[in-house]
Amino acid sequence: MTPDTSIIVPLAMLSDVATAALRRAGCDAAHARATAGVMVRAEQDGCSSHGLFRLPGYLAALRSGKVAGDATPVVAPLAPGLIRIDGQRGFAPLAMGLARENLAPLARSQGIAAAAIVNVHHFSALWVDIEPLVAEGLGAFCFTSYLPVVAPAGAKTPLFGTNPMAFGFPGADGGFMFDQASASMARGELQILSREGKLAPDGAGVDRDGNPTNDPAAILAGAQSPFGGHKGSSIALMIELLAGVLIGQPTSSEAFREETAFGALEGAGPPRGGVLLIAFDPQQFGDAPGWRAHAASFFSELRALPGMRLPGDRRRRERDRIAREGVALPAALWRDALEAAGHNPVTNRE
Amino acid sequence: MTPDTSIIVPLAMLSDVATAALRRAGCDAAHARATAGVMVRAEQDGCSSHGLFRLPGYLAALRSGKVAGDATPVVAPLAPGLIRIDGQRGFAPLAMGLARENLAPLARSQGIAAAAIVNVHHFSALWVDIEPLVAEGLGAFCFTSYLPVVAPAGAKTPLFGTNPMAFGFPGADGGFMFDQASASMARGELQILSREGKLAPDGAGVDRDGNPTNDPAAILAGAQSPFGGHKGSSIALMIELLAGVLIGQPTSSEAFREETAFGALEGAGPPRGGVLLIAFDPQQFGDAPGWRAHAASFFSELRALPGMRLPGDRRRRERDRIAREGVALPAALWRDALEAAGHNPVTNRE
Repeated sequence: MTPDTSIIVPLAMLSDVATAALRRAGCDAAHARATAGVMVRAEQDGCSSHGLFRLPGYLAALRSGKVAGDATPVVAPLAPGLIRIDGQRGFAPLAMGLARENLAPLARSQGIAAAAIVNVHHFSALWVDIEPLVAEGLGAFCFTSYLPVVAPAGAKTPLFGTNPMAFGFPGADGGFMFDQASASMARGELQILSREGKLAPDGAGVDRDGNPTNDPAAILAGAQSPFGGHKGSSIALMIELLAGVLIGQPTSSEAFREETAFGALEGAGPPRGGVLLIAFDPQQFGDAPGWRAHAASFFSELRALPGMRLPGDRRRRERDRIAREGVALPAALWRDALEAAGHNPVTNRE
Repeated sequence: MTPDTSIIVPLAMLSDVATAALRRAGCDAAHARATAGVMVRAEQDGCSSHGLFRLPGYLAALRSGKVAGDATPVVAPLAPGLIRIDGQRGFAPLAMGLARENLAPLARSQGIAAAAIVNVHHFSALWVDIEPLVAEGLGAFCFTSYLPVVAPAGAKTPLFGTNPMAFGFPGADGGFMFDQASASMARGELQILSREGKLAPDGAGVDRDGNPTNDPAAILAGAQSPFGGHKGSSIALMIELLAGVLIGQPTSSEAFREETAFGALEGAGPPRGGVLLIAFDPQQFGDAPGWRAHAASFFSELRALPGMRLPGDRRRRERDRIAREGVALPAALWRDALEAAGHNPVTNRE
């Protein structure tokens, strides 16, 4: 079996195996279910860079002892339109679920509200964190930082994280969402290119010496570029402020120093950090119920443009197909997951 | 006197002349002062594309009858964390001032709050709209759309406005702010390049037939590109939703149809539209007063990187110098402004 071989796995089986692997590595049932859930959602939408590919990182983080797989997140009010969810050093998905549960009614009553999610280890796609809010009719912004891997525009040393920002707006067909790294490409995508021996596109980053390169491994060891030059760099900076400074959490470079002090090695999964989630209720902004028809006519006009493709369109198409047909996973990744879940590989090959 | 000649004008004189020109064209005292104010602030910070260069557009908008120079903006609460300011078809600066006055205390009490500014004609730099909030210790986001001049990524037909987004975070030395068009460059910059017979950089846009070009006039007649490909395009789209659909205001393409129906010609100044302003109080996010020192250490680390330049640094340097020395204006632009203000050009040349 070469590493390139892929295997089709039903989503329910993927969910069971990922959950079991997380349980075996020290997650309680709630954490295992929530964390496996975000990987399954990513795979279902064809987003392999945030799917099972992340399991080894989650497991390494648990093994390192830096993540508390049995932490109970705690909700606290900060102001009428603000709450804090302290993840108590668990993985983010459980705390994010609690944040949404508490933030949604607040957004409806206040018009706009925010949740500062702190002391979590965030490793998932960000659209997964806002999709349930959008599905229940709310708009949302979400921001998180990471580890210093992106050089600010003009500089050649990594200081910003890949720092994704997600935005969602409700409407027909699940509404509109985007989730984009402020790096020119997602780190997971570079890791996959490197694993597959492929080249990165021009402008993706520089090597350790600050020279432009197309070698994904050299970029991973050097610095990624922000998307869109100084404008993407400004967005990465904004995210350091929102997910770090504003809510008393480490910036990307502080997270790196914390990891180093802890003795965590590369590949030891996500660092401790914060997430800022803002939700708003379009019903309260003065054009209810008109905004729904307005959104629909706007998107009709947009989709009528030749060449137009909206973020999330591919995900939506993949979603139904993969739920029906199962997900294609690299066989080696699946084998490792089975092993981590304690399955007997011989039995599973029957 | 050639059009290239420039003339140094003290800011106070610029303010008087711009105010007088707006008064003569139909603005009441409050509108004239607020609107001249944003042009002077832009000139003071070396941002000529949003300075006196905009006066002819403001005057044309008044002459066309589409803008009410004596409108009184009206504030209404929408929800505990939301207000609406109806500009009653006046220029934006007066309504934006009222929005800030009402939003700041709300952000302090709620933690986060938003203002939907509707029925305004917005033509200024966006950082001017958030700077007073940042100066009093608040963070802010601001979004507005325009007229369809940017082709969404993948398409060749303009549908999005230049759609600027501004973000500010308080701190030492006036805090951190950026104000960036989601077009790869500001429309005003293209207009200035065209006026000066210079070329636009590669990737700035396409001509009417959808072909890439460096001719700024051809791009102005065709379509600008979003910054950073599909990611900048997503941000432009988000801004159409936030400043248009969410708050019951025209999207960029709807604004164009409204202008056309009104019979407004090109160069008739800004269309009617909305602005979304979100403010938040870092004192409420759970890390007060620590966030101030944290912000300072983050910016120190950032500024220590070789090659690093932060948005706003140039503006800050220019600000003191121009306040002291006056602003260099194209002589023809200044002569036209004097004429619009009813000054006798012969007298002024003495």
